Amino acid sequence: MGVGDPMVAEKLEQVPGILDELGIDVWLLFARESHTVHDPCFDLVVGSNVTWHSAFLLTRHGERIAIVGSLDKAQLETLGHYPEIIGYVGGISDDLRKTLARLDPRRIAINYSTDDVMSDGLTHGMYLTLIKFLGGTDYVERLESSAPLVGALRGRKSPTEQARIKTACETTVEIFSRLTPRLRVGLTEKEVAAMIREEMDAIGGLDLAWDADHCPAVFTGPDSAGAHAGPTDRPIEPGHLMNVDFGVKRNDYVSDLQRTWYFLRPGENDAPQAVHRGFDTLLGAIRAAAAELRPGVTGESIDTIARSYITDRGYAEYPHALGHQVGRTAHDGAGVLCPRWERYGSLPHLTVQKGQCYTIEPRLTVEGHGIVTMEEIVVVEEDGCEYLSRPQTELYLVRS
Amino acid sequence: MGVGDPMVAEKLEQVPGILDELGIDVWLLFARESHTVHDPCFDLVVGSNVTWHSAFLLTRHGERIAIVGSLDKAQLETLGHYPEIIGYVGGISDDLRKTLARLDPRRIAINYSTDDVMSDGLTHGMYLTLIKFLGGTDYVERLESSAPLVGALRGRKSPTEQARIKTACETTVEIFSRLTPRLRVGLTEKEVAAMIREEMDAIGGLDLAWDADHCPAVFTGPDSAGAHAGPTDRPIEPGHLMNVDFGVKRNDYVSDLQRTWYFLRPGENDAPQAVHRGFDTLLGAIRAAAAELRPGVTGESIDTIARSYITDRGYAEYPHALGHQVGRTAHDGAGVLCPRWERYGSLPHLTVQKGQCYTIEPRLTVEGHGIVTMEEIVVVEEDGCEYLSRPQTELYLVRS
Repeated sequence: MGVGDPMVAEKLEQVPGILDELGIDVWLLFARESHTVHDPCFDLVVGSNVTWHSAFLLTRHGERIAIVGSLDKAQLETLGHYPEIIGYVGGISDDLRKTLARLDPRRIAINYSTDDVMSDGLTHGMYLTLIKFLGGTDYVERLESSAPLVGALRGRKSPTEQARIKTACETTVEIFSRLTPRLRVGLTEKEVAAMIREEMDAIGGLDLAWDADHCPAVFTGPDSAGAHAGPTDRPIEPGHLMNVDFGVKRNDYVSDLQRTWYFLRPGENDAPQAVHRGFDTLLGAIRAAAAELRPGVTGESIDTIARSYITDRGYAEYPHALGHQVGRTAHDGAGVLCPRWERYGSLPHLTVQKGQCYTIEPRLTVEGHGIVTMEEIVVVEEDGCEYLSRPQTELYLVRS
Repeated sequence: MGVGDPMVAEKLEQVPGILDELGIDVWLLFARESHTVHDPCFDLVVGSNVTWHSAFLLTRHGERIAIVGSLDKAQLETLGHYPEIIGYVGGISDDLRKTLARLDPRRIAINYSTDDVMSDGLTHGMYLTLIKFLGGTDYVERLESSAPLVGALRGRKSPTEQARIKTACETTVEIFSRLTPRLRVGLTEKEVAAMIREEMDAIGGLDLAWDADHCPAVFTGPDSAGAHAGPTDRPIEPGHLMNVDFGVKRNDYVSDLQRTWYFLRPGENDAPQAVHRGFDTLLGAIRAAAAELRPGVTGESIDTIARSYITDRGYAEYPHALGHQVGRTAHDGAGVLCPRWERYGSLPHLTVQKGQCYTIEPRLTVEGHGIVTMEEIVVVEEDGCEYLSRPQTELYLVRS
């Protein structure tokens, strides 16, 4: 046996069953220079990078065949995930056509998707190259998107994967707990972000879950930038709502959580009623959505529950989806709990599957104070869902 | 002005001139979730990541327009590279069509390429999406590959870029110098790799130039794995040739160099004649190729010089290209100094341009001893090329 990642071995074991369920004969991953333009499926079922035109063929009968440039062969052999590895020097097309002729698949899923970024690692140039290499064979007509396959494979988290995500969530909640006593009026968003990074480094063994320029993202007060922007020199003032969007990567799996704090004004012993009403509305929206999240419902239906819960109470709707999956990445592919907007393509109609791990993250604005957001992570069970993060159920108050 | 990377600003300045030279009206970069499936052009001319469908339009008249999801807008504004940033909520297609109608370009270069990975960041799913969004307009017919544009933009290194690559090379040569006195028979490939990483960490401020599993790559003796494999537990024995392939990233730019050592057998004061002949042949091949490398020659013609230099002297030809460009990445896109093999597509026919930085890295086997490789980096000047790395000109001898 090889020295490859056991999580890759675990995912590879899932493949034949899902292929069979979908009636697909072969999953063909086609790639080159995967270090540079990286197909997310490589992390799931290859566990290494390749340099030249490379094909990974996985069949419903459990065969695993890699065709790679000769200098990439030894590395893949060391990992041991692919029992058959063909190395070529001049070009891949002969070996690829021969291998397909031997397997003679009726349906071939390839690594592209219009709607799911995690299933869309095949570049357009590589697609054209594949069509050229298969020119004159019947196989060109048998190609289809692997989106349903990849969605199921990536989405259905194994118990080991769920445990890793839960640990990443617990670590993140611990970092928030360490942060709270250090918070005070006058700190800038950048200073708060630096504190979070300090606490993360103090724990050790952690990476950021997404780009360092907005991980953590910190927003304070009524005039903050909104999601996906980096922290600024804006200072926390009394009466501000401040929120943080942060996640860590631990053992290759990530968290992605948001929390909200209120900074009391001189003389205040509690947040104003408007702030509490915003907080309670957001918490209610999360609970209402989580209560209905189970296998078989559409992503749109869950988004609608939270969205209308918020708009019914007089707040503007949030300008994004209610939630996305997490796993090896913070945005871990289709399905998504999202509205029927153009930018989500067919995603709103996909149904929830057992084992998927979703964020639930509505937001709303409390005029004059700032934004209330919480983001929790749940795993979909047989007949409902369960929190992997310990949810925020009370507004965190910071005395000036 | 914004806080964006000055190297991005420098590259953006180059764009209108290259568009004009090629007769292209608009360069359209189309992407989503660029953190996950990353278009290498983003490092050159965006300097940030985006989440939802995003379009970056650069015109030959110097206009720069970004159309992004509303939550990504603030971050891009902070960077300041794009004077016009349009944020959308529901979907990008209206703004994209309106913007194209306003610019009304005759030729539109988009980010795909069959042969150049650095120009091929558009996924097939996103290509299909773009075609759908532009459906019913004249612009679908006006799309073409941006490969010539990206090749020129990425390839023609500015003086600042050349200086950064040179510094990365000098640092790598320094690491090799620190390594040599620590080498001895009995060390395993993994132990040598660990020493290189130690020396790198001791210098500080450096990242690896490519994947950690084979950066450095270390190969000792006649039965080593060949390029692109990770170091093993194979120990260095007397009479072995050992070689290292290693590069660092410093200030966002990389090196990629190879060096060869010979381990004297008891009683030997020098390497055997066969080893010296191999070394001298390889050095001769590098020098012969470098002597002819200048603007206007094809990549293939330079590869042929080194390849035939080696085969004319009775050695087998190397199973890869003679050289590739370096820059922000170790494999920095077209052109390449490569033979006419299927896997290189049209690359052998591309001509060398001033300002490109190429590796020169032939290899040959000395029976019973191992592999001789050196890899140098040169920058193409007006009428020739100049070494950015201090070349290895003598075999490094290690006494047992």
